[in-house]
Amino acid sequence: MSDAIRIVEVGPRDGLQNEKQAIPTEVKLRFIQGLAAAGLKEIEATSFVSAKWVPQLADAEDVWLALPKGPRYDALAPNAKGMSRALELGVDRIALFTASSETFSVRNTNRTVAESLMTFEGLISAFRVQQPNGWMRGYVSTAFECPYEGQVDPRRTVEVARRLFEMGVDEVSIGDTIGAAAPIEVKVLTKLLGEVMPLEMIAYHFHDTRGTAIANVAQALDLGIRAFDSSAAGLGGCPYAPGAGGNLASEDLVYFLERTGIPTGVDLYGLSQASLEILGLLGREPAAKCQLAQLSASETCPT
Amino acid sequence: MSDAIRIVEVGPRDGLQNEKQAIPTEVKLRFIQGLAAAGLKEIEATSFVSAKWVPQLADAEDVWLALPKGPRYDALAPNAKGMSRALELGVDRIALFTASSETFSVRNTNRTVAESLMTFEGLISAFRVQQPNGWMRGYVSTAFECPYEGQVDPRRTVEVARRLFEMGVDEVSIGDTIGAAAPIEVKVLTKLLGEVMPLEMIAYHFHDTRGTAIANVAQALDLGIRAFDSSAAGLGGCPYAPGAGGNLASEDLVYFLERTGIPTGVDLYGLSQASLEILGLLGREPAAKCQLAQLSASETCPT
Repeated sequence: MSDAIRIVEVGPRDGLQNEKQAIPTEVKLRFIQGLAAAGLKEIEATSFVSAKWVPQLADAEDVWLALPKGPRYDALAPNAKGMSRALELGVDRIALFTASSETFSVRNTNRTVAESLMTFEGLISAFRVQQPNGWMRGYVSTAFECPYEGQVDPRRTVEVARRLFEMGVDEVSIGDTIGAAAPIEVKVLTKLLGEVMPLEMIAYHFHDTRGTAIANVAQALDLGIRAFDSSAAGLGGCPYAPGAGGNLASEDLVYFLERTGIPTGVDLYGLSQASLEILGLLGREPAAKCQLAQLSASETCPT
Repeated sequence: MSDAIRIVEVGPRDGLQNEKQAIPTEVKLRFIQGLAAAGLKEIEATSFVSAKWVPQLADAEDVWLALPKGPRYDALAPNAKGMSRALELGVDRIALFTASSETFSVRNTNRTVAESLMTFEGLISAFRVQQPNGWMRGYVSTAFECPYEGQVDPRRTVEVARRLFEMGVDEVSIGDTIGAAAPIEVKVLTKLLGEVMPLEMIAYHFHDTRGTAIANVAQALDLGIRAFDSSAAGLGGCPYAPGAGGNLASEDLVYFLERTGIPTGVDLYGLSQASLEILGLLGREPAAKCQLAQLSASETCPT
């Protein structure tokens, strides 16, 4: 396994959760099957979130129980109820979600950051008791910029990451939730994070809203970060228009890594096809750059 | 003027030349006016190419004579005929075009690379005689990868750039014509180029076909490159599908530079609007990431 660099595919969860159009469970499972067949080794499969808040993921149990063998899967547990549901199913890889920005945290989860972290203590204990060999990641969203508060002081992000680390999560995923950061900010934040926790426990979750995601990956890679989140076809994030960058597209991440000489074990053509059924259901054309390049019959129309 | 970093806007020439739908001269001029008003200081306005080959730019003389005051303009002279037309008009900033790849050169210009360079000697002499204070750039396209030959040996690109430098051009623009390069290749090529010519005479012309353009800019910037080509709305390049990356979008370049702390003097909102009339004529939605982000009424739909 060539996993010096880890790709965490978040399409089935982060990519779908904001989509209004219901996607049948079997379509999600075919999507995940396609991702697994393309060679993705870590997939965030769903969220045990309230069906009232996110109807799209109301089938979390059904999805989880039917996951194809091969990849390692995790699921988001947004609160105690979600954690109970996950633990009942025997889920042994869990993600928790908080933010650097107070306003974002309150608006998105109805809890302050401090309240989130308090909740986490109980959730983490409960998880560790039932899944002593389990794995947990903590998301820190709006790590660079908040849509309500503007640029976020990196020390706030570091403080939240440090708390998660001290609570014993296995990985902290640092999210540029609205895709605003430039590499220089990644450099500053990564150096500060490195002072409070090992870099191998950090993943970056970049969005490509403004075209900086791959540059940010390149910067983080240079500094020693070894895990990156991405979403097939760039699904999710903030899709305010066709072609707009939401999540960093897995296709673009794989292309960049391979072209940089870092093997990923992922078949780019298979990956580019995995999301097509869902894109069709959503009435969307493929828009991720490397996905288009892969699917295009003729890439050779140069100037 | 904050032009430690130069942006060369190539939308009016490179961005339009492959568009089949005729764009009226006055629309092009409003586009250029918008670019100038947004603060772009260097604009490649047109090409003195045969109207038979590129009907879209048949109005080169009309465009040139009506250019709004403010920016510095250059125009492409693809051959002796084009150079004559340019010199008759008094054009004092000229671009020449060749490639690293033989197959590309022959297919695109019907000349081998060696033949192009031979032609250039005469063109450059003629230009220098009539415009002793004029400025010339030489394009080296397919500098990293050729759509017909695959990856290009960087030494071939360096050799072509060196020849242009020795012939006395003022700038060499190194083009990733099909948008395939990763930063590591930019690093290798830039170091080799630096051995044969001053880095301040090099511009990079990246395409964003696979999402690597900003990462490549970041790498080049780190190495001391100070000039980058881009195209408003990402017009041009290889637009085989809506949303597909052709040229690096000027909006994305400006955002990246500003966010990195490098002032550009460009108003991103004005820039994002400059291409809208042309996009409307072409029946296309804005697709450049930062353009969408600027134009979107609501950027705040985070996960």
